[in-house]
Amino acid sequence: MLKQYTLSSLSAADIEQLVARNTDATHAIQDTVLHIIDDVRSRGDASLIELTAKFDKVTLEKLYLDKEDIEELALTITRDQQRALEIAFQNIHRFHSTQVRKERPIETMPGVKCWREARPIEKVGLYIPGGSAVLPSTLLMLGVPARIAGCKEIVVCSPPQQSGKINGFVAYCLLLLKIERIYLVGGAQAIAGMAFGTATLPKVDKIFGPGNQFVTKTKSLVQGMTNVSIDMPAGPSEVLVIADESANAAFVAADLLAQAEHGPDSQAVLVATSTRLINEVNIALEQQLRILPRAEIARMAIANSYAVEATDLQEAMRFSNIYAPEHLILETDAWNTLTPAIINAGSVFLGHLTPESAGDYASGTNHTLPTSGYARSYSGVSVDSFVKKITFQYIDEEGLRQIGSTVEILAELEGLHAHKNAVSVRK
Amino acid sequence: MLKQYTLSSLSAADIEQLVARNTDATHAIQDTVLHIIDDVRSRGDASLIELTAKFDKVTLEKLYLDKEDIEELALTITRDQQRALEIAFQNIHRFHSTQVRKERPIETMPGVKCWREARPIEKVGLYIPGGSAVLPSTLLMLGVPARIAGCKEIVVCSPPQQSGKINGFVAYCLLLLKIERIYLVGGAQAIAGMAFGTATLPKVDKIFGPGNQFVTKTKSLVQGMTNVSIDMPAGPSEVLVIADESANAAFVAADLLAQAEHGPDSQAVLVATSTRLINEVNIALEQQLRILPRAEIARMAIANSYAVEATDLQEAMRFSNIYAPEHLILETDAWNTLTPAIINAGSVFLGHLTPESAGDYASGTNHTLPTSGYARSYSGVSVDSFVKKITFQYIDEEGLRQIGSTVEILAELEGLHAHKNAVSVRK
Repeated sequence: MLKQYTLSSLSAADIEQLVARNTDATHAIQDTVLHIIDDVRSRGDASLIELTAKFDKVTLEKLYLDKEDIEELALTITRDQQRALEIAFQNIHRFHSTQVRKERPIETMPGVKCWREARPIEKVGLYIPGGSAVLPSTLLMLGVPARIAGCKEIVVCSPPQQSGKINGFVAYCLLLLKIERIYLVGGAQAIAGMAFGTATLPKVDKIFGPGNQFVTKTKSLVQGMTNVSIDMPAGPSEVLVIADESANAAFVAADLLAQAEHGPDSQAVLVATSTRLINEVNIALEQQLRILPRAEIARMAIANSYAVEATDLQEAMRFSNIYAPEHLILETDAWNTLTPAIINAGSVFLGHLTPESAGDYASGTNHTLPTSGYARSYSGVSVDSFVKKITFQYIDEEGLRQIGSTVEILAELEGLHAHKNAVSVRK
Repeated sequence: MLKQYTLSSLSAADIEQLVARNTDATHAIQDTVLHIIDDVRSRGDASLIELTAKFDKVTLEKLYLDKEDIEELALTITRDQQRALEIAFQNIHRFHSTQVRKERPIETMPGVKCWREARPIEKVGLYIPGGSAVLPSTLLMLGVPARIAGCKEIVVCSPPQQSGKINGFVAYCLLLLKIERIYLVGGAQAIAGMAFGTATLPKVDKIFGPGNQFVTKTKSLVQGMTNVSIDMPAGPSEVLVIADESANAAFVAADLLAQAEHGPDSQAVLVATSTRLINEVNIALEQQLRILPRAEIARMAIANSYAVEATDLQEAMRFSNIYAPEHLILETDAWNTLTPAIINAGSVFLGHLTPESAGDYASGTNHTLPTSGYARSYSGVSVDSFVKKITFQYIDEEGLRQIGSTVEILAELEGLHAHKNAVSVRK
């Protein structure tokens, strides 16, 4: 049963409180993580091996698996499973390929040409969480755009299974991506290792991927410590469903639960223009929860979630924009009229037949998306996340004549005479 | 006189040390800044007024200037100066307009449509440094892409002049940008104010702009404290010039000094394939320094800079890619053959007649660029920095038939049965 609010009776302050996400500011996590970072920096591989024994209960002889191991493991999954991963790979590849664009030079003045060229980030680190659910889909979501961008070195870290290896699904994705090595390191130690480098684990320029609180805390800390950047800040996953009378309560409930089963701190928000629908969704939630394997987790997340009744779809959308959801599902026949009003969201699922789980796996869009309200200023991962766009300019004699005095005047008014002279000396 | 090294005689470790930038890790800055953040959060406007009195020696009655004040101040500059700012504005606008692109939907499978749409970041904060040099050009470099992106609220902060106002150049840029208010707040307090909001100063979603160590430290700290993002980490400005026998020593020296006059911690690196050129550049540096108003600052920066002799241009470019300069100038007839080898750089200036100062002001490219080696993973500011790209997907009945079993298989193998059910329930 979802907690329930009526939007029209909420003050701005109420709404602000309602959309605020849990931000766990425990210093315990920070202290633990700082200790791990120090240890990995100072003791390198030895630290990675010890921490893996401690946290993953696996004693590694070698910190990685190579091509032969990967090929062998990939054979352990069924042909149907392989085909499903191939289809996901293809769709993700197809969609992300549209993000590559060559830009043409523009003459801003006669003789002054400017343009941008994309260059891959050379060394990228992809973190693939293990733990309660192993997520080969995340490997595809990060590996495909990295490959399209042309990154030279793709470092993949994932905690080892109890077997000391990785599962066959992840192995098959590595084959699809033509990545020939995976490092069996997880948690804060994996992030620290990729940020600073060890004898075995390469230092990277940018770290990508979701993870638990320790992983995300480490990502945010290392970017201030060394020359490494990260894809985005990360918090628990979330969905907001906007639904009206045209919605199917069973579909809505299924979408809320797909979010809720991720973890107890996930949040599933329903914004509906119909009391009847909210009641029906609550009933459907109970029915579906009864047969859900991860029902216990989902129930905790549902307790952390709520329904909001809105007067109309436009009011519902205004609330959604304040919430700025990672995933937004529009379960209404009128989705078409709503999309122009979307301002803040990570990824949007349109109409009654587009569940979020399609985008989580296989529609082609990326599932690495901004959470916790960061959709106000961040985009999800794309090919853009794996490149830099470098600006170029070329000025010829005519261009220097055209632009020269402008630069000289502006340099002078800022009191930067050497800037002025760099033009004057060329005239 | 530049310190001098020969590239072929340097080990990898030597090179690593040479390209490392000063990273001032003084805790004194962090402690000061944390104190300011706390004070602004808890006391709001009163804190901003007190801190402005303390640091800028100005007692404000009102925290901002409005349209009338701005229009009046803009009249204090000459028509030539106005025209120079207009030309810079137009060129920047022309180049940044090319960065806007509507993407077409793609069908990844029959009945599965995916696309991206850009949405402006609603509230952006632009920080325009005051202090030793007031930089109206920075206001254009941030304001133009914000306007093109369509940001709804553009909050501009800049420390007040001794007059308690802003200078006429900044005022004129505000007019060009149709921004009708400027907040007279600088330093760490401006960043804290925009991150958390006060009664007068609006909270923003993303903060842009350069600043001193206090400003940049505050930017990096607030992004972990509240739901705000920043354009990029920032360090002292830098240039790397690659030059060969075809270069003009006076041009090269002028470009190095244009960088050096920014501040004592700026770095100007020359990578040349000719000993003769390095010697001539050293002579030209002395000559030009003699008549430079900011010679004292430039001399300190030159002491912090160096020349590297390379065997050939390709070796020079490899060094440049390791250094990953904010600005890269290719003063060689053969610049055309070098550009494909550029991997890491912020903005690139091609040939003998393209000084960095042209890009600093008026060529049209942005001058807010990644420093301190962050060009390995960051791009400079562009229209992209002011938008989010939201992904959309729409699946119809045919699409659900096509993609359904793939999603079900993948959800099942990840053990996420509610994800699977969100598809099954729709079939």
